[in-house]
Amino acid sequence: MAHHHLKLDALHTVWDNALSPALTVASGDTVTLDTLDASGGGVARRVLSGELSAPPTLISPIEADARAPLGGPRGHPLTGPVFVEGSRPGDALRIELLEVRTAAWGWTGCRPNGIGLLDAALAAEGLESYTHIWDLRAGTHADLKPGVRVPLAPFPGVIGVAPGASGPHPTAPPRSVGGNMDIRQLVAGSTLWLPVEAPGALLSVGDLHAAQGDGEVSGTGIETAGQVTLRVHVERQAGITIPEFTTPTSGGRSGAWHATTGHHPDLMTAARIALRALLRHLERRGLTLPEAYVLASACVDLKISQIVDAPNYTVSAFLPLDIFMEG
Amino acid sequence: MAHHHLKLDALHTVWDNALSPALTVASGDTVTLDTLDASGGGVARRVLSGELSAPPTLISPIEADARAPLGGPRGHPLTGPVFVEGSRPGDALRIELLEVRTAAWGWTGCRPNGIGLLDAALAAEGLESYTHIWDLRAGTHADLKPGVRVPLAPFPGVIGVAPGASGPHPTAPPRSVGGNMDIRQLVAGSTLWLPVEAPGALLSVGDLHAAQGDGEVSGTGIETAGQVTLRVHVERQAGITIPEFTTPTSGGRSGAWHATTGHHPDLMTAARIALRALLRHLERRGLTLPEAYVLASACVDLKISQIVDAPNYTVSAFLPLDIFMEG
Repeated sequence: MAHHHLKLDALHTVWDNALSPALTVASGDTVTLDTLDASGGGVARRVLSGELSAPPTLISPIEADARAPLGGPRGHPLTGPVFVEGSRPGDALRIELLEVRTAAWGWTGCRPNGIGLLDAALAAEGLESYTHIWDLRAGTHADLKPGVRVPLAPFPGVIGVAPGASGPHPTAPPRSVGGNMDIRQLVAGSTLWLPVEAPGALLSVGDLHAAQGDGEVSGTGIETAGQVTLRVHVERQAGITIPEFTTPTSGGRSGAWHATTGHHPDLMTAARIALRALLRHLERRGLTLPEAYVLASACVDLKISQIVDAPNYTVSAFLPLDIFMEG
Repeated sequence: MAHHHLKLDALHTVWDNALSPALTVASGDTVTLDTLDASGGGVARRVLSGELSAPPTLISPIEADARAPLGGPRGHPLTGPVFVEGSRPGDALRIELLEVRTAAWGWTGCRPNGIGLLDAALAAEGLESYTHIWDLRAGTHADLKPGVRVPLAPFPGVIGVAPGASGPHPTAPPRSVGGNMDIRQLVAGSTLWLPVEAPGALLSVGDLHAAQGDGEVSGTGIETAGQVTLRVHVERQAGITIPEFTTPTSGGRSGAWHATTGHHPDLMTAARIALRALLRHLERRGLTLPEAYVLASACVDLKISQIVDAPNYTVSAFLPLDIFMEG
């Protein structure tokens, strides 16, 4: 079983089953893929230009990411595609996530007219754009500010294979072949099954997150460059039509939580109600609104508490209280 | 601080701020409330008539619940209302959940044309009505069948105060004053804040669940009669408009999980896609479709993985694998 290493010269920003493979591997091989952050180095360049502020000790690693070969508002920069020999439509690609390493820093942002769950509502309340630069060098946690820290559990925000339908497909929405699923439980130790729709599967990976809550409510997790090592296997006629995975964690952990509850016929609206109340809770704890929104995106979980008590369904937003340090 | 005990002669089946209080207490008092199961003893009567089967050793406790004073398809039988002296609209009622005790048995059901998330789809596939009777006497877990057991974590499915709007309100949908929220993290050790909309708050409780997954996908958790002990406090002008709570658990636990992922512009549809694939996974493990559906309602969690990657949002269904016993 061979080991391969795909570096940053193998990048693409759309899904397309006509892309030339950057690498061909056999079932059972392992691959290490270097990845850019979702902005393709754009945030690093904004830090170096002085538009965004960051701890001075982080400037050196940020400089490395500022040399990223891509940038601008195209799709996510993805590393791949990897052609897996012998995989055909109808098979599943089984992917063991062996290791996920982040860069030394990451970022989480919000803005009034972005993709975040409350962007429109908060714009009306005067929300301003905000980007927080996180220092990831401790490895186990990152500080939003003194006394507020988020535990790290890195995973690839984007992992997928090429769609069967021809032509380019945008990277933003996930689909039946995976992609931008932003599932925070896809940490090292997980195994992911993806339905193969194109010959060779054409696996690509990118958009690492050092941490994220279920929901990714402001539109970004802790975005970072990094490196993913995985092993691929072809499973014949696995009978799956959407991504499935096993994971060593559902995202829970010991310690107390504070939760807010939205009840509404529309789940999206119920989620907005719950999240707005949770941001108010964070504001009462002394955070600014942009800080609260960014923190929620990094660590607040949206759960569907019940989806059967018509006409109102319940979405709860869960804040882990161990992020607040004593004293 | 006084302690009170409300028994089963204090029952109602609608929310209405004109109901006469069954009990008046002071802020700081504790109350123990005896509660019926959601069917008001109806399932117990179906077991005793031979329409449903149950372990012979459970017949004696089931007989006790068959004597319930209510039955039939009205609202949830709720115990209360409790008038809390000094609580006024604009206040919050803070409720410490001190103890939740279940009866010796419980039930979970599914049927082709009920309220469950997949009832319509599964009816087209020939789903038949099914009610499983669980033996809860072990206290820590309950068996679906040999080798498949669900851990117990009891909580009140319904806990709420009277709506400010006059007239009767059905018990099925939860609302800003709480009610049928079916939030499985509201276990003993939790503290719940409810907005007070009527003088005296008028707290009622019922519909205990011995266990439930986030979502309650077949429409029922492990439904049971039982007893809740809680302490109430009035908080002036607490500034909350929807239920909020702290809890010692977000529902996660150690051990591996299997998850399926639905990606769709509509969160309800995304949840249906994920759940249908999860039921197929359970069928591959040897469960019948009704067994799979009922098991999922008792222990599968629906998470909003991301709610920002338009046009497709992601709902994941998480199955805890520790429910399968070795060998």
